Amino acid sequence: MSATDRTRVRRHPERGAYEREPIDAILDEALICHVGFVVDGQPFVIPTIHARVGDVLYLHGSPASRMLRTLRDGVDVCVTATLLDGIVLARSVYNHSMNYRSAVVLGRAREVVATDEKLRALEAVVEHMVPGRWSDARQPTQGELDGTTVLALALDEASAKVRSGPSNDFDRDAELPVWAGVIPLRLEAGAPEADSVDVPLPPYLRD
Amino acid sequence: MSATDRTRVRRHPERGAYEREPIDAILDEALICHVGFVVDGQPFVIPTIHARVGDVLYLHGSPASRMLRTLRDGVDVCVTATLLDGIVLARSVYNHSMNYRSAVVLGRAREVVATDEKLRALEAVVEHMVPGRWSDARQPTQGELDGTTVLALALDEASAKVRSGPSNDFDRDAELPVWAGVIPLRLEAGAPEADSVDVPLPPYLRD
Repeated sequence: MSATDRTRVRRHPERGAYEREPIDAILDEALICHVGFVVDGQPFVIPTIHARVGDVLYLHGSPASRMLRTLRDGVDVCVTATLLDGIVLARSVYNHSMNYRSAVVLGRAREVVATDEKLRALEAVVEHMVPGRWSDARQPTQGELDGTTVLALALDEASAKVRSGPSNDFDRDAELPVWAGVIPLRLEAGAPEADSVDVPLPPYLRD
Repeated sequence: MSATDRTRVRRHPERGAYEREPIDAILDEALICHVGFVVDGQPFVIPTIHARVGDVLYLHGSPASRMLRTLRDGVDVCVTATLLDGIVLARSVYNHSMNYRSAVVLGRAREVVATDEKLRALEAVVEHMVPGRWSDARQPTQGELDGTTVLALALDEASAKVRSGPSNDFDRDAELPVWAGVIPLRLEAGAPEADSVDVPLPPYLRD
């Protein structure tokens, strides 16, 4: 994929990437994304879960949701997924930063109507959250499928931006007696909390 | 604060809140937000750090950044901060969900030009990331201040949306032999990684 005028990373262009591999890796690791769309000139940014299947990013939700109703009309959308990797403490306040990986996808979504694609998309969303979960839980009824809007966004125009590594202090600050370095950040999963004790913890939840 | 037609939570209205206390708490806990703005009809969603001081949300960045250049013209903006609290596993795939807290702020930003407000805003951003850090690091020079754009967004139109608690299965699914519950999620900070061993870890980094 090439950078377009809309996806090219302008600030710190050395942090930009336009290959599918880093973009896909960020989309696949992020549990949620933030979806941007415009209603009457006002941008809205809404968090939602997603899943990637090959060249397509799937979103889903209620047919009553403003976001889904807006997006299925084929309007311009921006989907951004961000992973926080650390707080970067420099010797000067000016050079403080974050380590992060973000992916930005632009395009227009289409509504998925074929039942088989809809099921594959919902399976991908559930498996994205908890691998192994889909086949263990009760499958959707036709009514539940009809009550779920699924949207597909092609990964045609996208970019990644990544900052990693230690602080970038100015040379003139290198000898200041100020602690500098990185506080790593990680989204950690805790021990599963069961609704009832009747069903043992399945193997796919034991890691 | 009252809900407006633009901030009212439509899907699961019982999850919506319009008081400043929950909104402020989410903005204060979230290390980053996602900023939505429109350029030539195309929405963009960009992650960035922020800080709240009283009734104002501050953003900052390079004067060369497209986001900052666009926003300081006083265009409509949406700032969304999201905290992930858990993955909710229901007995049916249909009722799977996430536990989260999100805050959405709408409005138009103004550029901060007064040096004292700019300094207070930057101090708030640094203290928001690492309390105690501001006074320890080298303070900004006039050139660094001039090279930083700070924007202020009043917390006049905002909402929070919160999902918490166990899975909401349909009554008819309650007896299914499927594990149901919550996998808690938490952004964890690891041990600080120093750039050099010359300066001891300051007290404010020891927790």
